[in-house]
Amino acid sequence: MNGRVLIVGSIALDDVQTPFGDEEGVLGGAAVFGSISASLCAPVDIVGVVGDDFPEAHFNRLRSRGIDTAGVEVIDGGKTFRWRGRYEGMMEEAITLDTQVNVFSDFRPKIPASFCEDSIVFLANIDPEVQLAVLDQVPDAKLVLCDTMNYWIKSKRDALIEVLKRVDIALMNSTEARMLFDTTSLPKAAASLLDLGLKRAIIKKGEHGVLMFNRDGFFSSPAVPLEEVVDPTGAGDSFAGGFSGFLANAGEISEESMRQAVVVGSCMASFVVEGFSTTRLEEVDAGMLEGRCHSLRGSMNVNRLRIAERTGVAD
Amino acid sequence: MNGRVLIVGSIALDDVQTPFGDEEGVLGGAAVFGSISASLCAPVDIVGVVGDDFPEAHFNRLRSRGIDTAGVEVIDGGKTFRWRGRYEGMMEEAITLDTQVNVFSDFRPKIPASFCEDSIVFLANIDPEVQLAVLDQVPDAKLVLCDTMNYWIKSKRDALIEVLKRVDIALMNSTEARMLFDTTSLPKAAASLLDLGLKRAIIKKGEHGVLMFNRDGFFSSPAVPLEEVVDPTGAGDSFAGGFSGFLANAGEISEESMRQAVVVGSCMASFVVEGFSTTRLEEVDAGMLEGRCHSLRGSMNVNRLRIAERTGVAD
Repeated sequence: MNGRVLIVGSIALDDVQTPFGDEEGVLGGAAVFGSISASLCAPVDIVGVVGDDFPEAHFNRLRSRGIDTAGVEVIDGGKTFRWRGRYEGMMEEAITLDTQVNVFSDFRPKIPASFCEDSIVFLANIDPEVQLAVLDQVPDAKLVLCDTMNYWIKSKRDALIEVLKRVDIALMNSTEARMLFDTTSLPKAAASLLDLGLKRAIIKKGEHGVLMFNRDGFFSSPAVPLEEVVDPTGAGDSFAGGFSGFLANAGEISEESMRQAVVVGSCMASFVVEGFSTTRLEEVDAGMLEGRCHSLRGSMNVNRLRIAERTGVAD
Repeated sequence: MNGRVLIVGSIALDDVQTPFGDEEGVLGGAAVFGSISASLCAPVDIVGVVGDDFPEAHFNRLRSRGIDTAGVEVIDGGKTFRWRGRYEGMMEEAITLDTQVNVFSDFRPKIPASFCEDSIVFLANIDPEVQLAVLDQVPDAKLVLCDTMNYWIKSKRDALIEVLKRVDIALMNSTEARMLFDTTSLPKAAASLLDLGLKRAIIKKGEHGVLMFNRDGFFSSPAVPLEEVVDPTGAGDSFAGGFSGFLANAGEISEESMRQAVVVGSCMASFVVEGFSTTRLEEVDAGMLEGRCHSLRGSMNVNRLRIAERTGVAD
């Protein structure tokens, strides 16, 4: 175990429209948001694929944060995965306008040998069959997290269930958790996830924060209240990255460190949505993150209380 | 200040349909749920109006809990307020099928003199003009809370704003808070409430718990995760009752006691929805409540954390 985080998933160019503006061809992708977020706390290895249209400047942004990009395959003559989406109103869910999978359609990740020693593996949202292929290459990871999305729940549920049986922590948003087990109840969906053998189920609820379930109970973290969300893209991946990076740095994986990791992840998610793409995330330093974590922790702090039995109620 | 809670609002007979069954003519109304909930921790005085069709057995259920019903007017030949509603799917919001206001249409509450000494006043959801008339009668209350609903926000916004300017704590659900200030942002809605002069704004979010804002920040309590909700009716009023009762008993009103009161309210809300009408709420004793509060508090407990500045990131 080397204290590093391995992140496998999409590296993308995004076209994003929100009430705050339109951005074309900006740096995106689940593995990118996850890696930039994780790299504040721990060294990161990223694995993915891009076309030769992917700007060298984007590579440099990753490398300047100590993210090892040796596992990013560049396909000559290929085009990078491109996602076009819009957020409206409450901006709770993206409206996908167009997805060009491009070089990602043939993605068969080969994990560089040195990355296979990484302590924590985050399988960002990709085809669950690809996630299974990665799992075969990292049998010694201390902790493996996976994310997914509604598309795979509908189209490849069996493969996804196989993935979930082989990882330690599932991350998904509340809509996905409900869809996966066809229930309106989040506690039931979480119980079904744990029944698959997962150690933890983390349900992301956007502005309502995060619930982390294990067999003994749950931990709840609120979201940082933000008066304005500029661009929600990457919030979930930034959560997962912050969570993974904090744990890799902490070394010890315990109930307490995982709760702290949820707080760190929630704060990283709150930063990324303050700007388009990864711009705001790249500005965060340790002091800013610690300050926001301290404040968020303060919002859930309450002393033990006693309920006195009232006497003479029935008099 | 006498350590008692005064609750003014509807006393009703409800016809409720949920996926778990149909119940006809059961005990309901905001003041009833609030009073039964509050009475676990503190003595309660209830003010409202019923017709002579209101069963004596219902009065006895209230009185057996030490709730003083001297302020409940009984109209000879009148019919009790009746609400018929249904919950479907996620059961987040009631579908009102029929409302018969009956004796409530002429309700002009006269607060018995002894009740005017009560420490805490909860103005449950009623016409804001009626809430203003109550406020004139309780100038010495230590703490006044008010609830409202979408109907008044649409039809009597100005009167409601007057109420909010004169009370200490506003309680409303997230849909109502957003509607009142025409914003999608809960933090913005909370800030607008505080701008009216309120000390606190409490936003109820159902399964997502409760946020309590003041000028210095916020406190977040998760909801108790329940695999099954039998009947959501009265959850918000049971929250308000538990909150008020705990504070009346605690005596001291501080940031800490209010946070504890939010936890108590959240647990009382979690009990009421486990059964139809007030049946489950009436079974709760101090030990059950304290146990659930202890468990809920455990789900938000996290140690302080440090973020180490990584060195050599840009190497």
